[in-house]
Amino acid sequence: MSPGPAKQFDPDLALEQARDLFWERGYDGTSLSALEAAMGIGRKSFYDTFGSKRELYLRSLRHYTDTVIAKIRAGLDDPRNGPLENLERVLGRLQAHHGSPDSLGCLLGVAMGQAGSDDDDLAALVRDALHRLELAFRRNLEAAQADGTVDADASPRDAARALVALTQGMALLGRVAHPMAQQRSIVRAALHGLRP
Amino acid sequence: MSPGPAKQFDPDLALEQARDLFWERGYDGTSLSALEAAMGIGRKSFYDTFGSKRELYLRSLRHYTDTVIAKIRAGLDDPRNGPLENLERVLGRLQAHHGSPDSLGCLLGVAMGQAGSDDDDLAALVRDALHRLELAFRRNLEAAQADGTVDADASPRDAARALVALTQGMALLGRVAHPMAQQRSIVRAALHGLRP
Repeated sequence: MSPGPAKQFDPDLALEQARDLFWERGYDGTSLSALEAAMGIGRKSFYDTFGSKRELYLRSLRHYTDTVIAKIRAGLDDPRNGPLENLERVLGRLQAHHGSPDSLGCLLGVAMGQAGSDDDDLAALVRDALHRLELAFRRNLEAAQADGTVDADASPRDAARALVALTQGMALLGRVAHPMAQQRSIVRAALHGLRP
Repeated sequence: MSPGPAKQFDPDLALEQARDLFWERGYDGTSLSALEAAMGIGRKSFYDTFGSKRELYLRSLRHYTDTVIAKIRAGLDDPRNGPLENLERVLGRLQAHHGSPDSLGCLLGVAMGQAGSDDDDLAALVRDALHRLELAFRRNLEAAQADGTVDADASPRDAARALVALTQGMALLGRVAHPMAQQRSIVRAALHGLRP
Protein backbone atom coordinates (compact mmCIF):
# COMPACT_ATOMS: atom_id res chain seq x y z
CA MET A 1 0.00 0.00 0.00
CA SER A 2 1.42 3.37 -0.90
CA PRO A 3 1.38 6.03 1.82
CA GLY A 4 -1.17 8.81 1.35
CA PRO A 5 0.01 12.26 0.36
CA ALA A 6 2.31 13.78 2.97
CA LYS A 7 0.44 16.03 5.40
CA GLN A 8 1.23 19.66 4.68
CA PHE A 9 1.53 20.63 8.34
CA ASP A 10 2.54 19.55 11.83
CA PRO A 11 -0.65 19.28 13.93
CA ASP A 12 1.14 20.07 17.22
CA LEU A 13 2.81 23.15 15.85
CA ALA A 14 -0.46 24.21 14.20
CA LEU A 15 -2.23 23.85 17.55
CA GLU A 16 0.28 26.18 19.20
CA GLN A 17 -0.02 28.71 16.41
CA ALA A 18 -3.79 28.66 16.84
CA ARG A 19 -3.40 29.04 20.60
CA ASP A 20 -1.26 32.16 20.18
CA LEU A 21 -3.77 33.72 17.82
CA PHE A 22 -6.72 33.04 20.16
CA TRP A 23 -4.65 34.40 23.03
CA GLU A 24 -3.88 37.64 21.28
CA ARG A 25 -7.22 38.31 19.62
CA GLY A 26 -9.75 36.31 21.61
CA TYR A 27 -12.14 33.69 20.26
CA ASP A 28 -14.57 36.03 18.52
CA GLY A 29 -11.77 38.20 17.15
CA THR A 30 -10.03 35.24 15.51
CA SER A 31 -11.38 34.48 12.04
CA LEU A 32 -11.20 31.12 10.33
CA SER A 33 -9.07 32.57 7.56
CA ALA A 34 -6.62 34.13 10.05
CA LEU A 35 -6.34 30.69 11.70
CA GLU A 36 -5.70 29.00 8.37
CA ALA A 37 -3.03 31.57 7.51
CA ALA A 38 -1.28 31.28 10.90
CA MET A 39 -1.45 27.49 10.86
CA GLY A 40 -0.47 27.27 7.21
CA ILE A 41 -3.31 24.92 6.27
CA GLY A 42 -6.31 24.96 3.98
CA ARG A 43 -9.94 24.68 4.98
CA LYS A 44 -10.14 20.94 4.21
CA SER A 45 -7.17 20.00 6.41
CA PHE A 46 -8.54 22.33 9.05
CA TYR A 47 -11.90 20.57 9.22
CA ASP A 48 -10.39 17.10 8.81
CA THR A 49 -7.96 17.61 11.67
CA PHE A 50 -9.73 19.93 14.08
CA GLY A 51 -13.45 19.64 13.27
CA SER A 52 -14.42 23.26 13.86
CA LYS A 53 -13.10 26.55 15.19
CA ARG A 54 -14.74 25.84 18.51
CA GLU A 55 -13.21 22.34 18.83
CA LEU A 56 -9.83 23.77 17.90
CA TYR A 57 -10.28 26.42 20.61
CA LEU A 58 -11.14 23.91 23.32
CA ARG A 59 -8.25 21.67 22.21
CA SER A 60 -5.77 24.54 22.28
CA LEU A 61 -7.02 25.56 25.73
CA ARG A 62 -6.57 22.00 27.01
CA HIS A 63 -3.08 21.83 25.52
CA TYR A 64 -2.24 25.16 27.17
CA THR A 65 -3.56 24.27 30.64
CA ASP A 66 -1.83 20.87 30.59
CA THR A 67 1.49 22.48 29.70
CA VAL A 68 1.25 25.31 32.24
CA ILE A 69 0.09 23.12 35.11
CA ALA A 70 2.81 20.55 34.43
CA LYS A 71 5.40 23.33 34.55
CA ILE A 72 4.05 24.79 37.79
CA ARG A 73 3.87 21.34 39.36
CA ALA A 74 7.45 20.55 38.35
CA GLY A 75 8.57 23.85 39.87
CA LEU A 76 6.72 23.22 43.13
CA ASP A 77 8.13 19.69 43.40
CA ASP A 78 11.76 20.51 42.56
CA PRO A 79 13.71 18.22 44.92
CA ARG A 80 16.68 20.60 45.04
CA ASN A 81 14.84 23.15 47.22
CA GLY A 82 12.50 23.30 50.17
CA PRO A 83 8.77 23.65 49.40
CA LEU A 84 8.42 27.34 50.34
CA GLU A 85 11.50 28.18 48.28
CA ASN A 86 9.91 26.36 45.35
CA LEU A 87 6.70 28.35 45.81
CA GLU A 88 8.74 31.57 45.86
CA ARG A 89 10.45 30.57 42.64
CA VAL A 90 7.20 29.66 40.89
CA LEU A 91 5.50 32.91 41.96
CA GLY A 92 8.65 34.80 40.98
CA ARG A 93 8.50 33.34 37.47
CA LEU A 94 4.82 34.28 37.15
CA GLN A 95 5.63 37.76 38.43
CA ALA A 96 8.43 38.21 35.87
CA HIS A 97 6.21 36.91 33.11
CA HIS A 98 3.14 39.03 33.90
CA GLY A 99 5.18 42.12 34.73
CA SER A 100 6.76 42.15 31.27
CA PRO A 101 5.20 44.34 28.58
CA ASP A 102 4.51 41.43 26.26
CA SER A 103 2.43 39.49 28.78
CA LEU A 104 -0.89 38.44 27.30
CA GLY A 105 -2.15 37.30 30.69
CA CYS A 106 -3.25 33.73 31.21
CA LEU A 107 -5.06 32.15 28.29
CA LEU A 108 -7.39 30.49 30.76
CA GLY A 109 -8.24 33.82 32.39
CA VAL A 110 -8.80 35.36 28.99
CA ALA A 111 -11.09 32.47 28.11
CA MET A 112 -12.97 32.90 31.40
CA GLY A 113 -13.49 36.57 30.67
CA GLN A 114 -14.57 35.88 27.11
CA ALA A 115 -16.81 32.89 27.64
CA GLY A 116 -20.50 33.53 27.67
CA SER A 117 -21.62 32.85 31.23
CA ASP A 118 -23.59 29.87 29.88
CA ASP A 119 -20.73 28.11 28.05
CA ASP A 120 -20.73 24.79 29.93
CA ASP A 121 -17.93 23.02 28.02
CA LEU A 122 -15.53 25.84 28.57
CA ALA A 123 -16.58 26.27 32.20
CA ALA A 124 -15.96 22.55 32.85
CA LEU A 125 -12.53 22.71 31.24
CA VAL A 126 -11.60 25.78 33.30
CA ARG A 127 -12.92 24.35 36.56
CA ASP A 128 -10.92 21.17 36.04
CA ALA A 129 -7.73 23.12 35.36
CA LEU A 130 -8.25 25.37 38.40
CA HIS A 131 -8.86 22.34 40.56
CA ARG A 132 -5.58 20.73 39.46
CA LEU A 133 -3.78 23.99 40.15
CA GLU A 134 -5.36 24.20 43.60
CA LEU A 135 -4.21 20.67 44.42
CA ALA A 136 -0.64 21.44 43.30
CA PHE A 137 -0.50 24.51 45.55
CA ARG A 138 -2.13 22.65 48.41
CA ARG A 139 0.38 19.80 48.34
CA ASN A 140 3.20 22.32 48.31
CA LEU A 141 1.73 24.25 51.27
CA GLU A 142 1.23 21.08 53.29
CA ALA A 143 4.88 20.19 52.75
CA ALA A 144 5.95 23.72 53.71
CA GLN A 145 3.82 23.55 56.83
CA ALA A 146 5.38 20.21 57.73
CA ASP A 147 8.89 21.65 57.55
CA GLY A 148 7.87 24.76 59.52
CA THR A 149 8.32 27.37 56.78
CA VAL A 150 4.59 28.12 56.53
CA ASP A 151 2.43 29.28 59.45
CA ALA A 152 1.09 26.19 61.27
CA ASP A 153 -2.30 27.89 61.75
CA ALA A 154 -2.87 28.51 58.05
CA SER A 155 -5.31 26.25 56.21
CA PRO A 156 -3.47 24.78 53.19
CA ARG A 157 -6.77 24.38 51.37
CA ASP A 158 -7.83 27.99 51.92
CA ALA A 159 -4.36 29.30 51.12
CA ALA A 160 -4.18 27.17 47.96
CA ARG A 161 -7.51 28.57 46.78
CA ALA A 162 -6.32 32.09 47.54
CA LEU A 163 -3.15 31.42 45.50
CA VAL A 164 -5.28 30.28 42.56
CA ALA A 165 -7.33 33.51 42.74
CA LEU A 166 -4.19 35.58 43.26
CA THR A 167 -2.28 34.13 40.31
CA GLN A 168 -5.33 34.49 38.05
CA GLY A 169 -5.60 38.10 39.20
CA MET A 170 -1.88 38.66 38.51
CA ALA A 171 -2.30 37.32 35.00
CA LEU A 172 -5.37 39.45 34.37
CA LEU A 173 -3.57 42.58 35.57
CA GLY A 174 -0.59 41.62 33.41
CA ARG A 175 -2.77 41.85 30.33
CA VAL A 176 -3.45 45.57 30.81
CA ALA A 177 -0.96 46.94 33.34
CA HIS A 178 2.64 45.87 33.31
CA PRO A 179 4.59 47.58 36.05
CA MET A 180 6.88 44.90 37.42
CA ALA A 181 6.77 46.70 40.81
CA GLN A 182 3.08 45.90 41.14
CA GLN A 183 3.57 42.21 40.44
CA ARG A 184 6.47 42.11 42.89
CA SER A 185 4.29 43.67 45.58
CA ILE A 186 1.63 41.03 45.08
CA VAL A 187 4.06 38.15 45.45
CA ARG A 188 5.77 39.73 48.48
CA ALA A 189 2.41 40.23 50.21
CA ALA A 190 1.32 36.66 49.49
CA LEU A 191 4.54 35.21 50.88
CA HIS A 192 4.49 37.56 53.87
CA GLY A 193 0.98 36.36 54.71
CA LEU A 194 2.04 32.70 54.62
CA ARG A 195 5.10 32.92 56.86
CA PRO A 196 4.85 31.96 60.52
CA MET B 1 -39.24 78.40 21.44
CA SER B 2 -41.11 75.15 21.58
CA PRO B 3 -39.33 72.21 23.15
CA GLY B 4 -38.13 69.50 20.76
CA PRO B 5 -39.88 66.13 20.72
CA ALA B 6 -39.63 64.36 24.07
CA LYS B 7 -36.72 61.92 24.21
CA GLN B 8 -38.02 58.38 23.95
CA PHE B 9 -35.62 56.99 26.58
CA ASP B 10 -33.76 57.65 29.82
CA PRO B 11 -30.03 57.85 28.96
CA ASP B 12 -28.90 56.64 32.43
CA LEU B 13 -31.19 53.64 32.37
CA ALA B 14 -30.18 52.91 28.77
CA LEU B 15 -26.52 52.99 29.83
CA GLU B 16 -27.17 50.37 32.51
CA GLN B 17 -29.10 48.17 30.11
CA ALA B 18 -26.18 48.35 27.68
CA ARG B 19 -23.75 47.56 30.50
CA ASP B 20 -25.67 44.41 31.42
CA LEU B 21 -25.71 43.21 27.83
CA PHE B 22 -21.96 43.79 27.38
CA TRP B 23 -21.37 42.02 30.69
CA GLU B 24 -23.32 38.96 29.71
CA ARG B 25 -22.23 38.63 26.07
CA GLY B 26 -18.96 40.54 25.84
CA TYR B 27 -18.16 43.37 23.47
CA ASP B 28 -17.86 41.36 20.28
CA GLY B 29 -20.89 39.21 21.13
CA THR B 30 -23.14 42.25 21.57
CA SER B 31 -24.67 43.45 18.30
CA LEU B 32 -25.88 46.95 17.62
CA SER B 33 -29.42 45.70 17.12
CA ALA B 34 -29.37 43.78 20.43
CA LEU B 35 -28.21 46.99 22.13
CA GLU B 36 -31.00 49.00 20.49
CA ALA B 37 -33.58 46.44 21.56
CA ALA B 38 -32.32 46.27 25.16
CA MET B 39 -32.07 50.04 25.43
CA GLY B 40 -35.38 50.63 23.65
CA ILE B 41 -33.97 53.16 21.21
CA GLY B 42 -33.56 53.51 17.45
CA ARG B 43 -30.31 53.85 15.56
CA LYS B 44 -30.56 57.63 15.26
CA SER B 45 -31.00 58.21 19.02
CA PHE B 46 -28.24 55.68 19.59
CA TYR B 47 -25.72 57.56 17.48
CA ASP B 48 -26.91 61.01 18.63
CA THR B 49 -26.56 60.07 22.30
CA PHE B 50 -23.70 57.59 22.43
CA GLY B 51 -21.71 58.15 19.24
CA SER B 52 -20.75 54.53 18.57
CA LYS B 53 -20.86 51.06 20.06
CA ARG B 54 -17.29 51.51 21.24
CA GLU B 55 -17.97 54.86 22.93
CA LEU B 56 -21.03 53.38 24.58
CA TYR B 57 -18.88 50.49 25.82
CA LEU B 58 -16.21 52.73 27.33
CA ARG B 59 -18.91 54.94 28.87
CA SER B 60 -20.71 51.97 30.42
CA LEU B 61 -17.39 50.64 31.78
CA ARG B 62 -16.62 54.01 33.35
CA HIS B 63 -20.11 54.18 34.87
CA TYR B 64 -19.65 50.66 36.24
CA THR B 65 -16.19 51.22 37.76
CA ASP B 66 -17.25 54.54 39.35
CA THR B 67 -20.27 52.86 40.96
CA VAL B 68 -18.39 49.79 42.21
CA ILE B 69 -15.42 51.72 43.57
CA ALA B 70 -17.68 54.22 45.35
CA LYS B 71 -19.51 51.31 47.01
CA ILE B 72 -16.30 49.58 48.10
CA ARG B 73 -14.88 52.85 49.42
CA ALA B 74 -18.06 53.59 51.39
CA GLY B 75 -17.89 50.08 52.87
CA LEU B 76 -14.22 50.44 53.84
CA ASP B 77 -14.84 53.85 55.42
CA ASP B 78 -17.99 52.95 57.37
CA PRO B 79 -17.53 54.89 60.64
CA ARG B 80 -19.60 52.37 62.64
CA ASN B 81 -16.88 49.68 62.50
CA GLY B 82 -13.15 49.33 62.83
CA PRO B 83 -11.15 49.23 59.57
CA LEU B 84 -10.40 45.48 59.58
CA GLU B 85 -14.05 44.74 60.28
CA ASN B 86 -14.98 46.93 57.31
CA LEU B 87 -12.50 45.05 55.12
CA GLU B 88 -14.03 41.75 56.26
CA ARG B 89 -17.50 43.01 55.39
CA VAL B 90 -16.47 44.26 51.96
CA LEU B 91 -14.67 41.00 51.12
CA GLY B 92 -17.66 39.08 52.51
CA ARG B 93 -20.00 40.91 50.15
CA LEU B 94 -17.72 40.19 47.18
CA GLN B 95 -17.54 36.55 48.27
CA ALA B 96 -21.34 36.27 48.49
CA HIS B 97 -21.73 37.96 45.13
CA HIS B 98 -19.14 35.90 43.25
CA GLY B 99 -20.11 32.65 44.93
CA SER B 100 -23.69 32.94 43.69
CA PRO B 101 -24.65 31.12 40.48
CA ASP B 102 -25.71 34.32 38.73
CA SER B 103 -22.36 36.03 39.17
CA LEU B 104 -21.08 37.40 35.88
CA GLY B 105 -17.73 38.21 37.41
CA CYS B 106 -16.41 41.74 37.35
CA LEU B 107 -17.20 43.72 34.23
CA LEU B 108 -13.73 45.21 34.44
CA GLY B 109 -12.13 41.78 34.56
CA VAL B 110 -14.26 40.63 31.65
CA ALA B 111 -13.18 43.71 29.72
CA MET B 112 -9.52 43.01 30.58
CA GLY B 113 -9.86 39.49 29.29
CA GLN B 114 -11.62 40.60 26.16
CA ALA B 115 -9.55 43.62 25.24
CA GLY B 116 -7.00 43.16 22.51
CA SER B 117 -3.64 43.51 24.21
CA ASP B 118 -3.15 46.72 22.17
CA ASP B 119 -6.37 48.51 23.19
CA ASP B 120 -4.85 51.60 24.83
CA ASP B 121 -8.09 53.44 25.74
CA LEU B 122 -9.47 50.45 27.54
CA ALA B 123 -6.15 49.69 29.22
CA ALA B 124 -5.93 53.28 30.52
CA LEU B 125 -9.49 53.12 31.87
CA VAL B 126 -8.79 49.81 33.61
CA ARG B 127 -5.44 50.95 35.06
CA ASP B 128 -7.06 54.07 36.48
CA ALA B 129 -9.85 52.05 38.13
CA LEU B 130 -7.40 49.51 39.57
CA HIS B 131 -5.27 52.33 40.95
CA ARG B 132 -8.25 53.89 42.72
CA LEU B 133 -9.15 50.48 44.14
CA GLU B 134 -5.57 49.98 45.35
CA LEU B 135 -5.61 53.35 47.14
CA ALA B 136 -8.92 52.54 48.85
CA PHE B 137 -7.54 49.22 50.15
CA ARG B 138 -4.26 50.85 51.14
CA ARG B 139 -5.91 53.58 53.20
CA ASN B 140 -8.01 50.93 54.94
CA LEU B 141 -4.95 48.76 55.70
CA GLU B 142 -3.00 51.73 57.05
CA ALA B 143 -5.88 52.49 59.42
CA ALA B 144 -6.08 48.83 60.46
CA GLN B 145 -2.34 48.76 61.08
CA ALA B 146 -2.61 51.92 63.17
CA ASP B 147 -5.23 50.33 65.43
CA GLY B 148 -3.25 47.08 65.70
CA THR B 149 -5.66 44.74 63.89
CA VAL B 150 -3.30 44.21 60.93
CA ASP B 151 0.24 42.86 61.24
CA ALA B 152 2.63 45.78 61.88
CA ASP B 153 5.24 44.21 59.57
CA ALA B 154 2.93 44.00 56.54
CA SER B 155 3.39 46.58 53.79
CA PRO B 156 0.01 48.27 53.22
CA ARG B 157 1.01 49.02 49.63
CA ASP B 158 1.97 45.42 48.86
CA ALA B 159 -1.07 44.04 50.66
CA ALA B 160 -3.39 46.49 48.86
CA ARG B 161 -1.99 45.38 45.50
CA ALA B 162 -2.45 41.76 46.49
CA LEU B 163 -6.07 42.50 47.46
CA VAL B 164 -6.66 44.05 44.03
CA ALA B 165 -5.28 40.92 42.33
CA LEU B 166 -7.16 38.65 44.72
CA THR B 167 -10.55 40.32 44.25
CA GLN B 168 -10.08 40.36 40.46
CA GLY B 169 -9.24 36.66 40.67
CA MET B 170 -12.34 35.99 42.81
CA ALA B 171 -14.51 37.74 40.26
CA LEU B 172 -12.93 35.85 37.39
CA LEU B 173 -13.46 32.52 39.15
CA GLY B 174 -17.03 33.56 39.94
CA ARG B 175 -17.75 33.77 36.24
CA VAL B 176 -17.12 30.06 35.67
CA ALA B 177 -17.07 28.31 39.05
CA HIS B 178 -19.54 29.22 41.73
CA PRO B 179 -18.98 27.14 44.84
CA MET B 180 -19.45 29.53 47.72
CA ALA B 181 -17.03 27.39 49.76
CA GLN B 182 -14.20 28.31 47.41
CA GLN B 183 -14.86 32.02 47.68
CA ARG B 184 -15.11 31.72 51.47
CA SER B 185 -11.72 29.98 51.55
CA ILE B 186 -10.12 32.77 49.58
CA VAL B 187 -11.39 35.48 51.89
CA ARG B 188 -10.46 33.50 55.02
CA ALA B 189 -6.91 32.97 53.74
CA ALA B 190 -6.52 36.65 52.84
CA LEU B 191 -7.67 37.79 56.28
CA HIS B 192 -5.59 35.14 58.03
CA GLY B 193 -2.51 36.41 56.20
CA LEU B 194 -3.13 39.99 57.30
CA ARG B 195 -3.65 39.39 61.01
CA PRO B 196 -0.78 39.96 63.46
